[in-house]
Amino acid sequence: MPFKDNLRAKSILVETYLAHCLSHLDMPPGLREAMNYSLLAGGKRLRPALCLSCAELFGLEAETALPFAAALECIHSYSLIHDDLPAMDNDDLRRGKPSNHKRFGEAAAILAGDGLLTDAFIFMASASPPGAGTAPPAERTLRALRAVAVAAGSQGMVGGQYLDMLYTSGQKITLEQLRDMQAAKTGALITVSCVSGAILAGAKEEDCVRLDRYGRSLGAAFQIVDDILDEEGDEAALGKPVGSDAAKGKITYPSLLGVSRSRALAEEAGAAALDAISVFSGTEALFLRELVEYVLQRSS
Amino acid sequence: MPFKDNLRAKSILVETYLAHCLSHLDMPPGLREAMNYSLLAGGKRLRPALCLSCAELFGLEAETALPFAAALECIHSYSLIHDDLPAMDNDDLRRGKPSNHKRFGEAAAILAGDGLLTDAFIFMASASPPGAGTAPPAERTLRALRAVAVAAGSQGMVGGQYLDMLYTSGQKITLEQLRDMQAAKTGALITVSCVSGAILAGAKEEDCVRLDRYGRSLGAAFQIVDDILDEEGDEAALGKPVGSDAAKGKITYPSLLGVSRSRALAEEAGAAALDAISVFSGTEALFLRELVEYVLQRSS
Repeated sequence: MPFKDNLRAKSILVETYLAHCLSHLDMPPGLREAMNYSLLAGGKRLRPALCLSCAELFGLEAETALPFAAALECIHSYSLIHDDLPAMDNDDLRRGKPSNHKRFGEAAAILAGDGLLTDAFIFMASASPPGAGTAPPAERTLRALRAVAVAAGSQGMVGGQYLDMLYTSGQKITLEQLRDMQAAKTGALITVSCVSGAILAGAKEEDCVRLDRYGRSLGAAFQIVDDILDEEGDEAALGKPVGSDAAKGKITYPSLLGVSRSRALAEEAGAAALDAISVFSGTEALFLRELVEYVLQRSS
Repeated sequence: MPFKDNLRAKSILVETYLAHCLSHLDMPPGLREAMNYSLLAGGKRLRPALCLSCAELFGLEAETALPFAAALECIHSYSLIHDDLPAMDNDDLRRGKPSNHKRFGEAAAILAGDGLLTDAFIFMASASPPGAGTAPPAERTLRALRAVAVAAGSQGMVGGQYLDMLYTSGQKITLEQLRDMQAAKTGALITVSCVSGAILAGAKEEDCVRLDRYGRSLGAAFQIVDDILDEEGDEAALGKPVGSDAAKGKITYPSLLGVSRSRALAEEAGAAALDAISVFSGTEALFLRELVEYVLQRSS
């Protein structure tokens, strides 16, 4: 299957499943609207695609990994809502639409984020229904869920966003600090998207380590390209103003190294990602390889 | 053991465990400070005590249920931090000290809450370490974790806080709406504190249902007393101004029914809680009974 068709098939699978899951939660209508607004607003669905692909790489059917794929997208979506808040990045636009708090108000946006984060754990904890023979054993689900919580929590994404806020207050930082901050803020969730799929599928420890390396390098490439796009991307494609990082006083790869050295660093990270999964073969290994190129070439 | 000693022993157990767990998480120092500030600021530790007691009621050692007891306190603490935010209740004081955002700023407070919520799931997912013979089986841990996520998420606590915000905007509500809102906002987490302990201990389904009824009634009694204390409590004991609900335009039990009918309703809920656990005997059953009286008589 061509790469774009595979990615699209995975997106549709996840979006259908997400809409189904959310419609079964009994919550206040206004809260549902705020959660759906951000969650079902499109996006590349990169994290769920990684999770499904890494599960399939080790023979698990995509459907069985869907609770985790959906949860990862919920967690990503919550992080965007909270990052956009006035007290954080104060962004009015997200994917070309008003950000969640601009549309629903700050209180609803904070709660929509809290709801998406918490409900993500309902989905993950439902991945081993008792008596379902094809589902992963509870031990695996628990281990994968724990890995996601570590990646999303104070040691991972939340900690990275804290550092991002700290560094934005005018502090000078080194390339190493920038790298560590971004590894926590965006890298950890991308990495655990790969690793959780592999854990669910019962992959061997050494293969989990390979996917961990792949995820870290892919995450680094993703973030450097993000920084470059913010510097010289196309506003229409991005759905937000170019130069917003600089306007906020954020240190980025281009601000530290310039665009061309940043581009070289992204290519290097991409090569490391490919190297990490060189032992794998088959459709999904090809998908993971093509995904590296996709991340490096993307314009939005 | 006298009730107060039992409650105190459980508090110390949980606080020691919480401090230990947090010290092992590798996060930015400023974020750790903000999380510790609210989490280790005292409080009744009601939810962890319920969890430990209900686990012990069915023969599980308190130590084994500690990851859940600690997680429930983290979730409670996160909810207080987010509820106090300017966009929500805009409270400057909590337990006689500046609220989290007054002390650390809004961005750090939002992230401290996000971190506590997410890390709570690390603790819970660690309750069945592979190879530990005395730990609950992974199936049970996963089931208890799922119940906590349901209680804390959009169908429970987050949904209840959303309704609380909605109702505070001047809308007239009925006693039934008030009851449903509070059952979600505070009742669900109190209830699941009981039920998760019982699930971990392998209690029979009918006993889980009994503790579910106990928790719901106890939660209702707790919240009605909270409303009464806000009307006529002692500011020094409460650590916050009396009358703050009314000042915010919140509908409460006393505002709908007056204090004496509210008090009668709390007593009724307390009696229902006692009735739900009438079949149980032993030290922990006694603790759960005395806890009802404690909740009804509390002054802070």
